[in-house]
Formats: sequence, C-alpha cells, structure tokens
Amino acid sequence: MRRGMGEIADVFPGHYALKDLTGHAAIGHNRYSTTGASQEQNAQPLLMKFKYRQMGAAHNGNITNAGDLKTELERGGAIFQTSSDSELVLHLFARSRKTGTIARLKDALMRLEGAYCFIFLTDDELIAARDPLGFRPLALGKRNGAWVVASETCAFDLIGARYIRDVEPGEILSISRKGLKSTHLPTTAQRAYCIFEHVYFARPDSIIYSENVDKVRRRLGRQLAIEQPADADIVISVPDSSNTAAVGYSEESGIRLEVGLIRNHYVGRTFILPHQQLRDLDVKIKFNTVRGVLQGKRVVIVDDSIVRGTTARKLVRMVRDAGAKEVHFRVASSPIISPCFYGIDMPTKRELIGSKRTIAAIKRHLGVDSLGYLSLDGMLSLSSHPKTSFCTACFSGKYPTRINRRSGKLALG
Amino acid sequence: MRRGMGEIADVFPGHYALKDLTGHAAIGHNRYSTTGASQEQNAQPLLMKFKYRQMGAAHNGNITNAGDLKTELERGGAIFQTSSDSELVLHLFARSRKTGTIARLKDALMRLEGAYCFIFLTDDELIAARDPLGFRPLALGKRNGAWVVASETCAFDLIGARYIRDVEPGEILSISRKGLKSTHLPTTAQRAYCIFEHVYFARPDSIIYSENVDKVRRRLGRQLAIEQPADADIVISVPDSSNTAAVGYSEESGIRLEVGLIRNHYVGRTFILPHQQLRDLDVKIKFNTVRGVLQGKRVVIVDDSIVRGTTARKLVRMVRDAGAKEVHFRVASSPIISPCFYGIDMPTKRELIGSKRTIAAIKRHLGVDSLGYLSLDGMLSLSSHPKTSFCTACFSGKYPTRINRRSGKLALG
Amino acid sequence: MRRGMGEIADVFPGHYALKDLTGHAAIGHNRYSTTGASQEQNAQPLLMKFKYRQMGAAHNGNITNAGDLKTELERGGAIFQTSSDSELVLHLFARSRKTGTIARLKDALMRLEGAYCFIFLTDDELIAARDPLGFRPLALGKRNGAWVVASETCAFDLIGARYIRDVEPGEILSISRKGLKSTHLPTTAQRAYCIFEHVYFARPDSIIYSENVDKVRRRLGRQLAIEQPADADIVISVPDSSNTAAVGYSEESGIRLEVGLIRNHYVGRTFILPHQQLRDLDVKIKFNTVRGVLQGKRVVIVDDSIVRGTTARKLVRMVRDAGAKEVHFRVASSPIISPCFYGIDMPTKRELIGSKRTIAAIKRHLGVDSLGYLSLDGMLSLSSHPKTSFCTACFSGKYPTRINRRSGKLALG
Amino acid sequence: MRRGMGEIADVFPGHYALKDLTGHAAIGHNRYSTTGASQEQNAQPLLMKFKYRQMGAAHNGNITNAGDLKTELERGGAIFQTSSDSELVLHLFARSRKTGTIARLKDALMRLEGAYCFIFLTDDELIAARDPLGFRPLALGKRNGAWVVASETCAFDLIGARYIRDVEPGEILSISRKGLKSTHLPTTAQRAYCIFEHVYFARPDSIIYSENVDKVRRRLGRQLAIEQPADADIVISVPDSSNTAAVGYSEESGIRLEVGLIRNHYVGRTFILPHQQLRDLDVKIKFNTVRGVLQGKRVVIVDDSIVRGTTARKLVRMVRDAGAKEVHFRVASSPIISPCFYGIDMPTKRELIGSKRTIAAIKRHLGVDSLGYLSLDGMLSLSSHPKTSFCTACFSGKYPTRINRRSGKLALG
Repeated sequence: MRRGMGEIADVFPGHYALKDLTGHAAIGHNRYSTTGASQEQNAQPLLMKFKYRQMGAAHNGNITNAGDLKTELERGGAIFQTSSDSELVLHLFARSRKTGTIARLKDALMRLEGAYCFIFLTDDELIAARDPLGFRPLALGKRNGAWVVASETCAFDLIGARYIRDVEPGEILSISRKGLKSTHLPTTAQRAYCIFEHVYFARPDSIIYSENVDKVRRRLGRQLAIEQPADADIVISVPDSSNTAAVGYSEESGIRLEVGLIRNHYVGRTFILPHQQLRDLDVKIKFNTVRGVLQGKRVVIVDDSIVRGTTARKLVRMVRDAGAKEVHFRVASSPIISPCFYGIDMPTKRELIGSKRTIAAIKRHLGVDSLGYLSLDGMLSLSSHPKTSFCTACFSGKYPTRINRRSGKLALG
Repeated sequence: MRRGMGEIADVFPGHYALKDLTGHAAIGHNRYSTTGASQEQNAQPLLMKFKYRQMGAAHNGNITNAGDLKTELERGGAIFQTSSDSELVLHLFARSRKTGTIARLKDALMRLEGAYCFIFLTDDELIAARDPLGFRPLALGKRNGAWVVASETCAFDLIGARYIRDVEPGEILSISRKGLKSTHLPTTAQRAYCIFEHVYFARPDSIIYSENVDKVRRRLGRQLAIEQPADADIVISVPDSSNTAAVGYSEESGIRLEVGLIRNHYVGRTFILPHQQLRDLDVKIKFNTVRGVLQGKRVVIVDDSIVRGTTARKLVRMVRDAGAKEVHFRVASSPIISPCFYGIDMPTKRELIGSKRTIAAIKRHLGVDSLGYLSLDGMLSLSSHPKTSFCTACFSGKYPTRINRRSGKLALG
Repeated sequence: MRRGMGEIADVFPGHYALKDLTGHAAIGHNRYSTTGASQEQNAQPLLMKFKYRQMGAAHNGNITNAGDLKTELERGGAIFQTSSDSELVLHLFARSRKTGTIARLKDALMRLEGAYCFIFLTDDELIAARDPLGFRPLALGKRNGAWVVASETCAFDLIGARYIRDVEPGEILSISRKGLKSTHLPTTAQRAYCIFEHVYFARPDSIIYSENVDKVRRRLGRQLAIEQPADADIVISVPDSSNTAAVGYSEESGIRLEVGLIRNHYVGRTFILPHQQLRDLDVKIKFNTVRGVLQGKRVVIVDDSIVRGTTARKLVRMVRDAGAKEVHFRVASSPIISPCFYGIDMPTKRELIGSKRTIAAIKRHLGVDSLGYLSLDGMLSLSSHPKTSFCTACFSGKYPTRINRRSGKLALG
Repeated sequence: MRRGMGEIADVFPGHYALKDLTGHAAIGHNRYSTTGASQEQNAQPLLMKFKYRQMGAAHNGNITNAGDLKTELERGGAIFQTSSDSELVLHLFARSRKTGTIARLKDALMRLEGAYCFIFLTDDELIAARDPLGFRPLALGKRNGAWVVASETCAFDLIGARYIRDVEPGEILSISRKGLKSTHLPTTAQRAYCIFEHVYFARPDSIIYSENVDKVRRRLGRQLAIEQPADADIVISVPDSSNTAAVGYSEESGIRLEVGLIRNHYVGRTFILPHQQLRDLDVKIKFNTVRGVLQGKRVVIVDDSIVRGTTARKLVRMVRDAGAKEVHFRVASSPIISPCFYGIDMPTKRELIGSKRTIAAIKRHLGVDSLGYLSLDGMLSLSSHPKTSFCTACFSGKYPTRINRRSGKLALG
C-alpha cells in the first residue's frame, strides 16, 4: 500500500513506485475529505489487519450516524486509528458475529446511514458496495476481461475500459477469480441520486445514473436561457466547469459564445502570498480576463452554481474592470440553501449566500445588472429519471434520511 | 535566494518560504530550459559572487555564439559552474576592463549573438536588457510606484500592475532608488520579433510587441477560415491553446463552435505508467472526448500548430473513436520546417513533420479527411507591424542572424 | 508526539523540535525492538485515542503470552495498529470493565505474563509499572521537585536528578500534580532480576537493583582472574563494554592492563559496503588493533560475554595479525545456552555458540591458546542479592515463568 | 560525485549510494572545515569543469596567502563558487600558461603558502600533493595491486591495504594506469611536521611521519610522569584521546590506572537542549563519572592538551562531585598559546587559556590541587625526528612561514 497527502503525483512521484505495487487487484483513491481532519492518518485507502486477514477500504460519501456508532464502538473497547467516518465499517466488520466476508460486511453496512460507495480489497476479492438510496454514482466497467469499478466513467475511457452498468443502489458486488457475484442489502424503491453531480461535480465526459453528464448539463444551459433570458452581446463561461452549460445557453439564446475568462492551468496547488493587500489575488491567479473580448460589451456570465458568492463577486469585478458595459449573471442551478451531509464539501448554512440573502440582495452583492437562477423544477425535468429519484437537499432543504445534526460533520474528530 | 527544479509550488511549498525572502527587489524566474542539461545547478536565477559584490541573473532566450564564447573564456582560465548559456554574460562581465556596472554589462552584452532578455539584480539595482533585434518580448509595468518587468503582461494583471511600455530592442534599463535610467546597445532598424509567441507561446490575455495576443490570434483563426474553409457541422478547439483561434474560425465560417475535447487540468506533472500496452495514454490523460458532441458529426479541429504530429494523430483517432463522421484538421499557422535557435524548445529538423513530409503525406499520417495550414503571408499580415519585423525562421528556414550550428543547441554541456 | 526510526538525533534533528514539544510531562523512549517488525508504525511511544481521552505508552521488556492475548482480543473484534506486543495492554485497558485509570490498568496488567516496565502518559498523570518478578530495572529519581523515572540511573546523572529508589516489582506508581501514589499488583516473594544487565547491558555508571553496575562488573573481572588465571604479559579489554571487567582481571592477576584495541567512535550507524571481499570489515570498522602494544606479547583478551562467537573470532584473528604471540580469551560470564524471552535481543538457540559447542570446540573455533568462562555460581555470588533473586535463563536454560514458545518471539507480526 | 553536510552516514544513507558510484578511481573526503563557512557549497571534494576535462579536488590543511591570491584572481575576472581556500588551486590551474596536467599543477601549487595535502582526480589519473614543509601527514599504501593515499594509515588497516611510505614533503605523486610517477616542487631541507598530530589529532593506531602514534603518545605520558609526578591513589584518562598517555603515566609512576570517566558513544551528533539551566550538560552528555572508582581517592587526571579550559574545568567539577578527595591534572603537552594557521581548528588567541593566564591562574581556574604540563623540550625529544623538524607554532608562537594575519582565517568568506 502506498498513500499520502496531496495530489497523485505527490504520492507517486515517478513511475517507479507504481511498478513496485505488484498484485492482480488494487484500489486507487483520491479522497476529498469531508469528515475527519485532513491528516496523513486519515488518508485512504485504509488498511486494517484482522485475525488471519487484512482488508483495504476506500470510501466516497458520508455516514450520517457516524457519531453514534463511534460512541457505541468505543464503549465496547474499540480503539480508532483515524478520525474518519470510513473506519467505522471496519470495526463493525471485525465485531460481526456472522461467518464469511460478505455476510459480515452486510451485517456492518446495515448499521450505516447516509451516503457511501465502498471499495474493499481482501487477499482474494475486490468488493464494491453502494448505499440503498444510491446517493453517489458507482460504475462497473470491463477491460480485456478484467472488471473495474469507478465513481465516474471518464476513468474507464482513460484506461480503455468499457462501461457495463451502474453498481445498483444497495448492491454488494464481489469480484474474484471466480467472477462477479452480486447480493443486495434490503432495499426500497426510494432513490436519492445527487443532482449536484450533474450540475457541477461530475466530469462532462462521464456517464452517471446512466446519463451523459454533458447532455444533461447542456440542457441545463438551454433551460436557463428559456427561464432567464438576457439582452446581451456575448455569453462567456466560467471555465471549465460551466463551459457546457454556457454552450447550451448560447445555442438557445442565439447570443454569441466568447472566451472572456482564461483559466490558468499551471497553478496546480495554490500557495498563499504574504501580501494581503493584493486584493482578489486567489481568483486572479486562477482566472484572467481577456480585455479585447469584454471591452464595451454587454456580457452574460454563465456559472454552474453559487456557493458563498465570493468567487462570483470577484469575477464580476474583474469582468467590469476589463471594460464590460453590462454584466448579467446566469446560474445553471437553483440557489443553494442547505449544507450537504452526503459527501459534497460545502460550508455551513450561515456561509451559503443562497440561504441568508434574497435573490435581489445577492444581485446587489455581486454587483451585476441582472441575476437569474434556474428553477428547481426546471433542473429536475432535464433528466430521464423521475423527479423524485433525486436528492435535492442542498437546493430544497429536504433531506432524504434523518439527520442527527450532532452526528453530522462536526461530531467526529 | 531560493531555487529548485519543478514547478513553483515545488520550490516554494508554502507561503512561509516566500515570507523569508526579504528585501526591496527580487527576480522570479520559471525557466523552461532549452540549452544546457536540465539539472539543479542550471536552475535560475543564477547567483554569482564577484569581488565586493554579488549579482543574480535570469535569462529568457538563447545565445547563438555560446559555444565560441565559452571556448574563448575557458582558454582564459574561466571555470563554469553551469552548462547553461546564461552564465556566459556573468564571466564576460567579470572580465570586462570597463568601470561601472552598466558599462561592464554593455561590454559583455555586445559580445552576445542571438536572443536574450536578461534581468540582473545587484545590491542596489535591477537591470533589464533585451537583445537588439527584440526576439523575445519584455514589458515594463508599474504598481503603486514600484517598477516591474515581465516577459508577458498577464503577470502584471495578476499583481495589479499597469503595463507601461515594452523594454525596447537593445535597451538596458536600470531600476534603482534613483528611478529609471535607460541606455542602449548599438542598434539597427532590423527587428526579429518571434511570430510563434503570437501563434502559441504567449497567453491570450497578454500584450506583446504592443498588441493583444488574443486579437492577433482571433485574426489567425478568421484568416484560416478564409484560406482553408471546410464543409462541416461543428468546430472544436484543442484546448486551451487554440481556443481563441477556434472562436475566430467559427465566427468567420459560421460553423457552430462546440466543446468536443475536455482537458484534464488535474494532471499537473504527468507520471509515466508502466503498462506500455495502454496506447495513447499520454494524450488520453491530457484530453478526453465528449462522445455526445462528436457522434455522427463532421468535425473541424482547429489547432495552433503541428510540431511532430504525434499528438495531432492521437487526437484525430480519439475524435474518430468518439463517433465523428469526418475530421477536418485546420492549423492556425504554417508548417514548421526548421528548428528554433532563439529560445523556443523544438525538436531537431528530422523530427519536425513539416520538414520531412508533404502536406498530402501529413494528411495521410494524421488520418484526416482534409488538412489545411495558414499561409506564411497570411500569418504576417495580421499584425500591425511590418511583415519584415518578425523572425519566421521556424516557418521559413530564414534565420535573422548567422547560426553556427555547432554553436547552437548541442555545442554546450 | 514525535517519533521515528533510527537514533535520537535522526528523530530530533535540531534543538528546535524539542522546544516544540510543550507540556509539563513527557515520555522519551529509545526502543531496541525485540518483538514485532522494525517498522515506523511500531516505533514507541505508542499513542492511542480512547473515548474522551488519549494515552501514550512506552514499554521495555517482552510479554510472553502476547500471542494468546492477541488471538483472544482479535476474536472480540479488536483491530491492532502495530505488530508490537506493547499494544496489547492498551486494548486490555480499553476493554476493562473497571472504573478509573489505575483500576483499569491493574486489570489489564494482571493479564500479562513476562517482563515489562511500562510508562503511561495521560492528560493528567504519568504512570510507571514494573512486572511482579522485576525482570527489568526501573528507577525513580527527583530533580528540582520533579519526579523522573528511567530504566537506568545514568540518565538521572545527565540531567542532574537524584536517584531515590527503584520502582518495586509489581508496583504501579502514579505521578500527578497531586504527587506520588503507589499501588501494587498481587505479588509474591519471587524475584527474577536479569543478571545480564550486570554482565553487559547496563552502563557501568548506573545503579540497578540498588547496586553499582561498575562494582559488580569489576568483581566479575576479579572473580574471573581467580577462576580462570592465565600466564600472559598483558591484559586487554574489548572496549568499551568489558573495560571494567578487564580492570578487575588486571588488578586481581597483577598482569598489566594495556590498550590493545581501539574502538572507532565515529562509525555511528554502520553502512554496508558493497565489496564483500573485504573480509571482517564490520568488525574492522568498529575496532582497530594497536600493533605496537600487541607485537610479540602473550595477550589476555577479556570480554563480557560470547553470543554467536563471530565477533570474538574476528577480534582474535586481528590480534594475532597484529603480532600477538599467544591469545588467551577470558569471558566475564558463563556460556550463553538459551535465548532470552524477557526483552534482551538474542539469536535463536541454534545460533548461540555456547548452546551447540563444547568449550573445547569453542576454543578451537575462536583459534585461541586458551579459553575460560566465569562459572554461574561465581557470577551469582558477586551481588548482595540472594542467588535465587536472579533470572539466569540465558545461562542456565531455567525460565522463571512458563514459556509458550509459540507465544514468544515469533508468534506475533 | 556525491557529497553533503554531516557525517558519512548522512551523506551515504545506505549501501545503495556507494554502489552507484562506479569507476576505477575515487576520492573520499571528510572535511573538518577551518576556512570558509560551513555550507553545502563548501563541501568537498570540489568538482570543477575545465575545457575538455573535469577535476575533483580534496584538501587537508590551510593556505595562508589565500586572501591575497583570491583578490588577485578576482581582479582577473575569476568567479568563485565557494568561500573555501581549496578552490584557489583550481583557478590557478585553469589560468596556468603551462601545458600538461602536472606542469600546470606545479605552476599552481608554487603560488600557495601554508599547509596542504591535496588529492586531485582527473579522468585518467589520481594526483597526491603535499606542501614542501610537510605540515600534514599523507601516506601511500597498496591493496591488491591498487595504490591508495590517505591522511592516516589507520584507513589502510580498515580496507586491508599495506602502508608503503609517506608522500614526501613537496612531492607530487601521479597514479594512473601507467603506474606511479613522482615529481617534486622546489624544496628545502626545512620541515614543519605538526607536533599536535602526535599529541591529539592522529589516531593511536596510525603511523605518521614514519612513527607509531601510539608509541610516541605513550612516551609523552611516561615523560609527563617524570616531569610532573603526583602523590595520588589512581590515574584516570579523559577517554579516548588521552588513554594511551594515561597508560604511559601509570606505567612510569606506578600509580594504578582506573576507569573513572565513561564516554557516551551513542551521542553521535549532539543536539542542543533548550533548558539552559542544565549546567554543564554538554560535557555530561559526553562523559559520566564512575562514583565507585573515584570516591575518597586522590586522582590524577591525564589529558592530552588544554585549549579553552572549559571542558577540563567541568570534568574536574564532575570528578569532585563523584567524591574524589584530591584532583591532580596532568597535561601530556605544553600550554597552547597561539592559534594554528595550518589547518587545526583552534579558537582565537584570546580564547586560549594558555595564552592569557599563568599556570598558577589556570590551576585556580580549573579548581585542581595541582596542575602540571609537559615541557616543549620534553615533547620534542620523544620523536626520532630532529627537534627542528616540527612545527610548534601553537605551543611556541613561532610560525615556520610568514603569516599575513589578514590573509589567515578571517580574510576569506
């Protein structure tokens, strides 16, 4: 096992290290931590040694009853090695009275609430598990007869694997020399696919919940142009996350798409400069305006979403500084009003601008000539899944599972 | 002084280190080495200690008579610390019989042939110097009363500095507590601005040779559409370097611009994977196709230039694999037929596909339905400078200075 | 907490790091690992987080029923973080049904068999515990009103602390702001002080088991001269461990003590040289002979003990190469015939030369003119403690506790 | 080439690195810097690239006209890479008008004043050079047909090489595939062997200036007993540097030798502890007293020399604290009254206790019952070389070469 903090290239500095990891099965995980401190010991995959065996585990998502489970396990004498919620399932597995790996895992997973996709690696099998409501995407692929599992299908393209199907909500999929074996946790018909994956998180070249992200995102942009038209000369995107939505907006509205913001790709890991008087430097390091494009124009900026509003505000100022005559801000999703407890890293409710200000107030705060959000109903209508299949908690405040707020984000660590 | 190999964030891992560099003047340099081995000791800025003083130096460009000068200096007992051509000027400075920093520098610079922008830092002044033909851009800016000098003006935007003017060809500009002082090397009216900066190298949000890169590059795309039209459904760019040219092509041709290639920005420093059977992986790690956009379409790919042709060939294959019906490749510059000896890192003549194959052969090699390059005359007509003001060596094979090929790239080290 | 592999200066590279460790109580531990692999994760002190508290632990000794305890705990769902036997006590502590730190610790320690001195550090107390038979030494000292605990009293001299008394066999000593508090595990009158500490392990300037090591070791040398006289010109020691015994031998025998072997103190961590043809290099790097002293002399070499016999053999060859006429080897302890399961790192029985060869055969193997060991009875008579108070397992094969050989050295990991 | 700061094991952390250094000739150098700052760039061997060749250099000694030479070379345009005096010879070599490596080296060496042993390594020869007065020892050895050169012959013992002869004062010895070739600098009959090598610096198991250090040092101890007898119970040495002298003192005086001070060999690189109130800790970390040996005794401490007197004073206090009734300090050399400019690192004249205080005052400062130094004449009479063959500058203040004090230690850097 090899793991560390930072980007992949930090942990695997050359091709040498990868070569050293021999074997016929592996887990690769790049965790964007949401629970537990950002520390080396919380890096994933986790690797634990049990009697007669060891097990590696990688986790995408967030366990909402983690606090209660940890308290219960510690009372029983468990000693935790990390402050991450991902370790819980391994202690539950170790204490299960069942026999056999899958039976013990099932026993452990049934205690969990919230969102999870797990990959477990034992000496002889690779096991993928997805929570019964299917919050996060998890896809099964195949390459030269070998099974692969990934959060997003763009990873399959990279290695030349074919997308086969999604790991189903509540499914436990075991991959071994004997082939594929599927069992299920007790499930309901309820689904809670994260809509924010389509809006922002997933890559446009992925297929999630059986749909092309790119196509859904283009429709979001088109629908935005219908719901929130603008009288303007050019449309620009906030690269790269809103490129596709901006194309959709431009197509539907007939307003010309231009490259008005350049993203600096060489930033890599940003580093903090000491001179605090360099106002807006963080955003300036990431983006630069193209004066020749913007000067004297009435500009529509299409962005995928607004979280705190700080980046949007700085971008608007930069676009104005570059000579834009008018700035019309269009958002290809609804206002974010509630935090996510299912694995998307968001600030607290107090920091969400959509939670504490009216749209009119946000417009003033951003300093734009007009501001338009996509409606929630509009968003949900653009997928082939029923509207009720999605978790819209961040946009609607309606959580599909009970949330013990104490047990959420802050209860661990 | 702090320097190292790799990206800026590798050399300055946190904000701490920057804070530690105190003083009222500084050189920052990110050198893409073209002469001399890629070794720690060749990292820039160079810092040398002379009698009673020390001097730091950063160099952009390439000295074409470096080999002869090095031989001459070593015969006179000089011991070189690096294998970089940038060190020559410091030895010439140390051996000058003149008095005074500027006079000694002038004496040293007059011995150099080729392309250079130098920044020197002594205990009390910062000196910028540009070669008499002006191969590489160098701009002077101002921020809160402080002078700054940079290769490209986009660096000024970042720190909120204003672009004032270019450092002129042949100018030696001294910045000290006493203000700005300008002197000149003996100059001619001849100019040799690198046209490749406009085609590819400079950022679109920069001003070089007093012109917006973005505007020139857009005109290259428009002119390409005029010279090399295509019967197609969509135009896509090879992100991000040809985005602007693709916009120009789309505008002029009326063919819709689409996002058909996604660039993966999280790659950072690439690492080589051991499985060589993963064909085209290097390009796949960098780009991914958007199947929904390309499927069944007649596609124009706009690229800024073709060097070896290997990336272009792999991209074409990926676009075809994603379902494109026809692929028309359009290049916003002329065929590259000769190497650059003035600081752009290019392969040898034998590796340049434009040097060894006809356009018909390149078309077959890339596997495209049609291929069109921009004419050299077309390229040169899009700037406000006279056509003769540019160095076109890589496109025309005509070098504006004598080139002792032995003294070029391979003669050092 | 700060820990690492290697020497103290590797883990604490400058005085800076030590300053960073703030607080009013601390554990310092330099573990010479005997059980569990030599890995970073096994480095001590261990630090574990329990519900509402954390606890650090350092361990000197070896738990002989570690294998059985680990099996039992893992059956109960415990997940071990290290392969060291030292972690067991923390799991037993976590699972204890008792209330209060000392009561839980007592509960845990009563499950352990074998040799241990533990130091535990909680947020508000430092706890020292020694096993009921007292295998390893543990001393209590005082410095400026602050209590300190150390394996050997030479550590007290270093920081100017005064030796107060030994932590008693079976004692649990708690040090907190409220002062010293002592409780005891159920004890017997049986003692098993490690005699090898006096022979070799302890520093001569320490007091262990209430006796000066230096004085006991001198008496071993004197007794050796009585039991095993030699007709020789000079006595030399194998520096530095047998210096004191050699002085005793010289005094008693009247044979002049000389410095015939020099120890190279600059070796630090040895590094392996690639040229295997450099025979005996490991010993040569450590020792050099003084030819002027040895040439033409009949030499008595006094060593503290013989384990494998490889070093002794090489030393004898070096002394002969330096011109010694006769070599008489005298050992200030009995033949080592059995491995230690109580914390002294010794090879397996098969590698112990005293276990597999007769004294006559060892004499031939070493290539000496005569060989003499001290008798076991002689060794035991030189302390003020009754002969039965010592563990003589390595010399006699009689273990003072039951040893489940599977549970010993090899059962873990 | 591989070099670094610290001990050998720091620079070559495993056997791996050594294996990587391939070739048929090598320089190994562990420099204890006396001139030039202690910086990575000053680490030796130096490696410089000249026209058509490169040369490595290692230097033991100190160039006394370094300041003047550096000024002269810098006026001629030389750029120095280090602040070490060792680099001078390479610049002089580079600027020599002679032809051929040896002729150019001779040309360069003849400009140097002071003490030096140089080892140069070119692509095809290894060259050893010793200054005409022979300040520092340099020996030639042979191992399996391969020539080796070392400062001290104990290095030969380690690798199984045989000592052949000294490199002579003023000799330049070239070792190549063609064999050994010797030339000489213009020499005089004058010699200036460093007597301090015999007193302290060299290892007792070495041969320097054709004499066993061990035998000379023993005679120093015997002579000391004759010149400075003491009425005492035991003799102890300050380990390990004065062990041999103490044996000599004990033999001659008939007073029993004891081990009263233990040196802690595990210290390695010392680290500074933050609590400055821990008085005398530096010496305590290095030495510990054996109370049982010293208590109630009249003790002779034999030391090789006294420099500042601080360590001696602390040792005396420690010996008294351990119960010694009387302390008689005996020094196996004369008072040090003048600094060394020939390569032994000594403090300034003002810090030398022998320079600023009378012997009576030193006795009071150390707090001893009696103090006795060896006479200079006594020291010089114990070698087989004429008394005039030695440099006694540190004991007599008479320097065998002119010393421009500005050009000495402080003039560089």
